[in-house]
Amino acid sequence: MEALTYTLTFKVEGAQDLTVPVVSGESLLDGAKKANLPIDAPCSGNGTCGKCKVKLLTGEVESKETRHITPEEYRIGYRLACSSTINSDITVFVPASVLAYQSHMKVTDLSTSREQGIFAAWQEELRNMGFLGDHGLTLVTVQLQVPALDDPMADRERLLWALAEQIGTVESIRFSLHALRRLPQLLRSADFSCTGVLRQEPDQTYTLLDLFPGNERENDSPVLIGLAIDIGTTSVSSLLVNLTTGDALAVGSAGNGQIRYGADVISRIIESTRPGGLERLHKAVTDACIEPLIKQICHTAGLPPERIYRVVVAANTTMTHLFLGVPAEHLRLEPYVPAFFATGTLRGADLGLGVHPDAEVEIAPSIGSYVGGDITAGAFSSMIFKKESLSLLIDLGTNGELVFGNGEFLMACACSAGPAFEGGDISCGMRATDGAIEACSIDQNSMEPTLKIIGSAGQKPLGLCGSGLIDTIGELFRCGIINAKGRIVPEGKRTFRDEWGIGSYILVFADQSESGRDIVLTETDIDNFIRAKGAIFSAIRTMLTMLDFTMDAIEEVYVSGGIGSGINVKNAIRIGMFPNLPLEQYHYIGNSSLSGAYGMLTSRKATEKVLEIGRGMTYLELSSHPSYMDEFVAACFIPHTDGALFNLDE
Amino acid sequence: MEALTYTLTFKVEGAQDLTVPVVSGESLLDGAKKANLPIDAPCSGNGTCGKCKVKLLTGEVESKETRHITPEEYRIGYRLACSSTINSDITVFVPASVLAYQSHMKVTDLSTSREQGIFAAWQEELRNMGFLGDHGLTLVTVQLQVPALDDPMADRERLLWALAEQIGTVESIRFSLHALRRLPQLLRSADFSCTGVLRQEPDQTYTLLDLFPGNERENDSPVLIGLAIDIGTTSVSSLLVNLTTGDALAVGSAGNGQIRYGADVISRIIESTRPGGLERLHKAVTDACIEPLIKQICHTAGLPPERIYRVVVAANTTMTHLFLGVPAEHLRLEPYVPAFFATGTLRGADLGLGVHPDAEVEIAPSIGSYVGGDITAGAFSSMIFKKESLSLLIDLGTNGELVFGNGEFLMACACSAGPAFEGGDISCGMRATDGAIEACSIDQNSMEPTLKIIGSAGQKPLGLCGSGLIDTIGELFRCGIINAKGRIVPEGKRTFRDEWGIGSYILVFADQSESGRDIVLTETDIDNFIRAKGAIFSAIRTMLTMLDFTMDAIEEVYVSGGIGSGINVKNAIRIGMFPNLPLEQYHYIGNSSLSGAYGMLTSRKATEKVLEIGRGMTYLELSSHPSYMDEFVAACFIPHTDGALFNLDE
Repeated sequence: MEALTYTLTFKVEGAQDLTVPVVSGESLLDGAKKANLPIDAPCSGNGTCGKCKVKLLTGEVESKETRHITPEEYRIGYRLACSSTINSDITVFVPASVLAYQSHMKVTDLSTSREQGIFAAWQEELRNMGFLGDHGLTLVTVQLQVPALDDPMADRERLLWALAEQIGTVESIRFSLHALRRLPQLLRSADFSCTGVLRQEPDQTYTLLDLFPGNERENDSPVLIGLAIDIGTTSVSSLLVNLTTGDALAVGSAGNGQIRYGADVISRIIESTRPGGLERLHKAVTDACIEPLIKQICHTAGLPPERIYRVVVAANTTMTHLFLGVPAEHLRLEPYVPAFFATGTLRGADLGLGVHPDAEVEIAPSIGSYVGGDITAGAFSSMIFKKESLSLLIDLGTNGELVFGNGEFLMACACSAGPAFEGGDISCGMRATDGAIEACSIDQNSMEPTLKIIGSAGQKPLGLCGSGLIDTIGELFRCGIINAKGRIVPEGKRTFRDEWGIGSYILVFADQSESGRDIVLTETDIDNFIRAKGAIFSAIRTMLTMLDFTMDAIEEVYVSGGIGSGINVKNAIRIGMFPNLPLEQYHYIGNSSLSGAYGMLTSRKATEKVLEIGRGMTYLELSSHPSYMDEFVAACFIPHTDGALFNLDE
Repeated sequence: MEALTYTLTFKVEGAQDLTVPVVSGESLLDGAKKANLPIDAPCSGNGTCGKCKVKLLTGEVESKETRHITPEEYRIGYRLACSSTINSDITVFVPASVLAYQSHMKVTDLSTSREQGIFAAWQEELRNMGFLGDHGLTLVTVQLQVPALDDPMADRERLLWALAEQIGTVESIRFSLHALRRLPQLLRSADFSCTGVLRQEPDQTYTLLDLFPGNERENDSPVLIGLAIDIGTTSVSSLLVNLTTGDALAVGSAGNGQIRYGADVISRIIESTRPGGLERLHKAVTDACIEPLIKQICHTAGLPPERIYRVVVAANTTMTHLFLGVPAEHLRLEPYVPAFFATGTLRGADLGLGVHPDAEVEIAPSIGSYVGGDITAGAFSSMIFKKESLSLLIDLGTNGELVFGNGEFLMACACSAGPAFEGGDISCGMRATDGAIEACSIDQNSMEPTLKIIGSAGQKPLGLCGSGLIDTIGELFRCGIINAKGRIVPEGKRTFRDEWGIGSYILVFADQSESGRDIVLTETDIDNFIRAKGAIFSAIRTMLTMLDFTMDAIEEVYVSGGIGSGINVKNAIRIGMFPNLPLEQYHYIGNSSLSGAYGMLTSRKATEKVLEIGRGMTYLELSSHPSYMDEFVAACFIPHTDGALFNLDE
């Protein structure tokens, strides 16, 4: 049968209409990808997450029945984009809430005083370790002779000799083309007085990167600028830094533009192996995400992006590969071999992000296919690498990653926690944006919840984000509303069982919610969440067992990741997600990947230290470990089949 | 008065129509620039050269009277594009002959056996000087262990350790991102056996540039590729080289895409200072000229451009600045200071021409605003720098440049010969393409000429190129048809004097010419030419006088430049262009700029030698020299006011 061509039009809430040609049999989600429309599809289009709900305005689609669409919703045109195939010309309405990528993510970005405190403490720590200011960049001010007919030496050579009097030799100073292009006008703008930005190279030569008129150091505006980036699977965070003082000049974050290709790294890798896919995934995170983000934070700081002379990137192994445009497919194929652990120093021009073309670019090293630079940078910023006490780093991103050890050894592993902490695979789940329930307590008698909502006063709830989910499930269990298997126990005003026999707890009634629908946590959601928390806990157990340690050997726990910012540790222990240790042993350290990248940015010695951490860290591949599956199954209860592990002293 | 907007359509012979909006008062040539249509305008739009003749089809223009348009031509719509201002919607026809830029230039490109002989002799010379093969690139073949679950080292680190066993150390080998991107697929395509292209850096580290499957050296196809480019004001020549053998893989040339902005460097510099002008001039020679040229010669050789690992560029000072996008305006403003003499080693990514992003790029150094890298490279390839005998290099391009000296000293100067040698400022002048008269002899009795025409058999003459011009004027003088002032003496079938009293000699009658019009050399043309040859000769005299030498001190003369390829030296001496020395002292050395660039390409030591030549060469600024103007005036006769200088022994 020959495929027929139809026209698909998206009427996007708050944005321009988009029209693309599609062929019969393609899904609405396929069409959205063609239109470059970032419809949120954390389950990668399997129809399980229910996030891609759009409304049919004209035309007909073939659509499977799904628990994510009520009969009433179906009647008025709601369909899942991923599960609706096209057989006519179509117009659909796309609510803004479906566009995850463009929404403002709540990520660790120094916007709260808690985060600012963590950052200040980390700066102090770096200073104590001698890791601030050692970035290789320096300023040199010179006053040149003004050229004349009897002194017609060229500008470059004139400057070169003057610089060589202060630093290096004529042979050891290289001019970047960027500086050369600015040279003639710049010298003449300030009577042949100028300040050069020079970088000392590992071979003791110098590169002249940039020029400013006169004595730039006399001005207040920062001159030596660096950029730290944390590329998460879900979101990207960045920090523009005054390298002279170590101060943050601007912070900014954005959704990872790859999210339209699936919520997890595996979906992205699969997409990258399709024709043109690597280029697509590469551009989705560079051109469509990081480049605009750099422009934005530079605009905030009032600086042009080409003034960024040093860049550090920390990301998981898949993100690092795709960011650099390196094929990632072997990460998911046995024997799970990355294209690289480290990259060596790259140049700004390699990235093409508008930063100085000769910027020094460092990438935090990976140690395995699923433990990447975010973790080596995180192990650095948690300072486990120099502790005497046995410490555990729990980094909660789209994947969960763990590092255990101290100054003598470090072992790391990753577990596929899945997207539940970020609202994926949860019917009322959402990312931690406005309207998300971020904390919850339940009254044991009335079963009535008290909720904390992200957003300005009067913001109505829209769904549950990760921290709210942990709280809600912890409270439901504490109050006996769910049992150890995650099943709803009592019947009441807030609980019900549907026609398929699936029990639910109603967190918010329709008349109180932003969407006008009940916000409901189902047993299916709870199952999904239990698997996620079980993955984390069983990974901790397996790693410790391998090393012949018991849980109480852990002396300190560092929790990091944007998702962790609001976690109630007591609830996380209650449901069997975190080990049952005294609460004072838990430390929240914010976005440890970005902090680590910041440390590397301010110091080449710190960069070398992270590379050393990477080389010294042992990678544990959980999937090939015989006892992991048993541990996982045992952890898929609330709190655990071995309840003794979680005797909370309330 | 508010400017009105009109539509201007160009119907281009043998190409697509082009339509642009124009405003009242703009010229047709302005419109052509907007449309990116390379109409030849060597006089920069002053109305003096008559090259930009187009035919009005619809609409009206305001046009000055000009001797370049006959009344009959005017009647049927011919106008000079530069001198016609627009006051309505217009359609014009553009003959292909007006599009200089797209025509195939006759440049030194190894297409003749004479040029091939010169090239072979130069290769031999380089070999004798130890300047072949010292390009820093090397191939290393390794066989890696295939990764396994118990050996999951990343590809890069696996290769790094294997390379370090053969060359350098793990710390001293850097991977280019280009190589990293190719790595995973490439290793798996040949059972983890591969050959790396490595470059040894000045600090003794190595850069891995590229990878090939298996043992690439066992194949016949060349692996280490380099590119030499000569950027002339009028045309660009390039040579793709197998760096392993030194052989030329492909040659190619194109008109310099900047030609639409004027024939000479001053016009280009002026254009570059207009808003957006620098970018325009830069792109005209890079994106619109060299990048397609590289694609073309790489296609000829069956190699992708990113396999070019080393690039050398030789060009005059203005072309070097504009090629690199460096402001050139101070070259023409007192005290005539270039932005740079040398650039240091640049990278492929700096140029953005599709060559390997980490290619090593060398630029031949300039020594002054009007003596550039074409001359330092030329001084290298003429080997003056190591001669015992006093030698003179005459490089005839759009500018004339001279180098005089030997192994002990070198002095260089430039003279503004103007575009006459390339057909500019000559009413029937043309570049050395099909239809150009390249040689001429005249029978003293009958005054009848015998002509040699460029092109296939049966090609009718269209105009005069530089070498034909020298011959014609030499023969007219020898036969007494013109006198020492360039005035037509006898009256006859082939000579006439027009209504303004300007005498002319008819080289070709209308019925024998390609255009159907007489090919005529006027006294005005001869005046223009005399000034050009006078500029060359007086520059030689001034330079020698400054050094206290007389003409007969010159022991050898090297003539280079595309224009020089067909020069009859005897005629050039007869008219007082070249010094009166024995003919056997003259040596034609082809495109010395490209030859020099080739030498630099094959060897870093040769590159260092050219830089040394540049540092050691004295620049003589003729315009500020007191006796130059007197010398010039004296040389503006045929052959000279001092006829004793040119007593030819016939």
